[in-house]
Amino acid sequence: MSERRPLKVALLGCGSVGSEVARIMTANAADLAARIGAPVELAGVAVRRAGVARPGIPDELITTDATALVKRGDLDVVIELIGGVEPARTLITTAFEHGAGVVTGNKALLAEDGTSLHAAAARHGVDLYYEAAVAGAIPLVRPLRESLAGDKVNRVLGILNGTTNFILDRMETSGAGYAEALEEATALGYAEADPTADVEGYDAAAKAAILAGIAFHTRVRLDDVHRQGITEITAADMASAARIGCTVKLLAICERTPDGKSVTARVHPAMIPLTHPLASVREAYNAVFVEASAAGQLMFYGPGAGGAPTASAVLGDLVAVARHRLSGASGPGESAYAQLPVAPPDEVVTRYHISLDVADRAGVLAHVAAVFAEHDVSIDTVRQQGKDGEASLVVVTHRATDAALAATVEALRQLETVRGVASTMRVEGE
Amino acid sequence: MSERRPLKVALLGCGSVGSEVARIMTANAADLAARIGAPVELAGVAVRRAGVARPGIPDELITTDATALVKRGDLDVVIELIGGVEPARTLITTAFEHGAGVVTGNKALLAEDGTSLHAAAARHGVDLYYEAAVAGAIPLVRPLRESLAGDKVNRVLGILNGTTNFILDRMETSGAGYAEALEEATALGYAEADPTADVEGYDAAAKAAILAGIAFHTRVRLDDVHRQGITEITAADMASAARIGCTVKLLAICERTPDGKSVTARVHPAMIPLTHPLASVREAYNAVFVEASAAGQLMFYGPGAGGAPTASAVLGDLVAVARHRLSGASGPGESAYAQLPVAPPDEVVTRYHISLDVADRAGVLAHVAAVFAEHDVSIDTVRQQGKDGEASLVVVTHRATDAALAATVEALRQLETVRGVASTMRVEGE
Repeated sequence: MSERRPLKVALLGCGSVGSEVARIMTANAADLAARIGAPVELAGVAVRRAGVARPGIPDELITTDATALVKRGDLDVVIELIGGVEPARTLITTAFEHGAGVVTGNKALLAEDGTSLHAAAARHGVDLYYEAAVAGAIPLVRPLRESLAGDKVNRVLGILNGTTNFILDRMETSGAGYAEALEEATALGYAEADPTADVEGYDAAAKAAILAGIAFHTRVRLDDVHRQGITEITAADMASAARIGCTVKLLAICERTPDGKSVTARVHPAMIPLTHPLASVREAYNAVFVEASAAGQLMFYGPGAGGAPTASAVLGDLVAVARHRLSGASGPGESAYAQLPVAPPDEVVTRYHISLDVADRAGVLAHVAAVFAEHDVSIDTVRQQGKDGEASLVVVTHRATDAALAATVEALRQLETVRGVASTMRVEGE
Repeated sequence: MSERRPLKVALLGCGSVGSEVARIMTANAADLAARIGAPVELAGVAVRRAGVARPGIPDELITTDATALVKRGDLDVVIELIGGVEPARTLITTAFEHGAGVVTGNKALLAEDGTSLHAAAARHGVDLYYEAAVAGAIPLVRPLRESLAGDKVNRVLGILNGTTNFILDRMETSGAGYAEALEEATALGYAEADPTADVEGYDAAAKAAILAGIAFHTRVRLDDVHRQGITEITAADMASAARIGCTVKLLAICERTPDGKSVTARVHPAMIPLTHPLASVREAYNAVFVEASAAGQLMFYGPGAGGAPTASAVLGDLVAVARHRLSGASGPGESAYAQLPVAPPDEVVTRYHISLDVADRAGVLAHVAAVFAEHDVSIDTVRQQGKDGEASLVVVTHRATDAALAATVEALRQLETVRGVASTMRVEGE
């Protein structure tokens, strides 16, 4: 096969992932050629700033004009690693118009506008691959899109953001507060200078939207995902979780509603039992459970971010798209035929952990218990702690809807004996 | 797309997996049609014995003449679930000759003769897919063949046989001996009446051969896999493992040798630390670690066998092969370009746990330690237990080669103070 013409690949973005992609393309050139059936040639690298040393990338390949690069017309594959909605969207659609397949790791763009990207790819008969957009090196998009294509996925539950997992892991193991753990994550390079996208759950929510869309063959956008970050998690919450044999994780949960007529997608902190496999996912690792009707429960685990792991996912997609170029085929496009509505999580049924500051006097528990009973929220356990006229009550409920719990909490706030609701958190994974 | 002609599918074998495949093809017909882009039609089911009730499968589809079925000439996909080498091999190649793609779960045949099957598929321009051959529902073949196609896999380590894992799990948790645990596994349907293929490691070795071949782009056959079963594991071994914070698992380990010039593949019982994720793989579940240069360490976990989970893998492949039929494409074929030699495991370096029956008198430890030293096998820990003139010595070594350990054990047997070598076992996963 060595006589075949080289496939031309352009790289948009040359940060930690892009530079690894370029490095591996050079270092593993012979292997890639053998696996694809033709050599791949790096035809151009678009960067924001010229004049920066890019070890291993010849100067003449570097350009700051990404638009001109994708318009060359002789490209086989464009690898988009710029991130964000624009100019990435325009560059990708321009690449399609000029006949190139695209490999991207752009979760924000896919969660915002995946449908129009898929439509553009289909219109031009080229591939759109995006394994790197979700959970770094962990094969998740391909297993959901292809391996489970004959099954019915009912639930996707996992840890999809490494930064927040690192912070929560530190809070759990060292007893640190949120601010202190964030500081450590920033110092070690796990959190960006502006950590908003991670700690407020936007990053995990974008990934959840992508996974839910594939899993349920339905269009799910970032706005459809109920989202709550970890900024309000306290050392007290973590200690409280430990007392009931749990830890706190930022979970992404996409599932069919019990009637099967709609789906929900949510990202929020939750307490999970220490015996649950997700509880032992440490540092910046990711792990995802997929539950399907025939397959049962599958788990995928690995590094969820980082230059080299994400580059591995990009290169796997590059091989697939390149093979398709040679054979004239294309991979699966968007599958959204099911068109299920995305419901708000009000009707999601979980257990709850509620921490109340109450007056330390007789009868408080009776008042509180009465409020739960009035709202049909059944109590599993209550723990009282009191000193100096102040006391706390920690209630763990049986399964209840979000709506019932919200009404209960609202009523508790009205009680004269309740000084405040310190925290409410879902308990998952049981 | 609904006006497209139905794709015709024949099923060879209608046992626990085949009947689930047929059931799901009917129950999920609309979903499968939407995902493939055309309906799939069950065109025939070959069975060994006619006259058995097959709920959900119309009588007129049943035949005992599998050869005539695959020679029909109008089939798009043949699903082979008979198992074993013949007649499966002839039926699959006949299917290829008549233009059909094949989905199979036949690990024995692939490990014996995968190369000639792949060559036959390539010759006729049709697909050979086999996700179901390894680890049931767990996507493993596709991630290795496609997701990691741009990376360099260095090691595959895992639990690939559910029957032996169930037996070892029972021995660990209940303290039962091998025979008793096997009896329980048989009663519960986890072990077959003749459990040889499972307990002697043949099943895991066939899967290891398949995975090693894909991972290292090299031909690996069943005979290349060093194989040792679990029949000699005793309750004493399990107790001994527990004393050093370990449990015993039947592991499949495929890896590159340190010089990168060859690969090894082996299946044998090994002690692994209780803190290792594989130690908590219970009952008949499977789990596999894949280590790749860029991706780092990935883990895949799920049900490794069973009718429905294996059917999920078969149907995922069916969707892929069916999509290819519509687009005129075909998936990746055999990739064996690396042609690395498969080395025997003599040079594999691991720690060892050795249990000796020795005379209970002064100086024994000195004699034993001298033998280890003579063979350059460094001792990590020694534990002595003695009573009534009999004693045992349990030695855990630092990392040593299989060859060095074998020579040491041979020399120990010659010592007058050593009554016998009760067991030797590798210690992995550290």
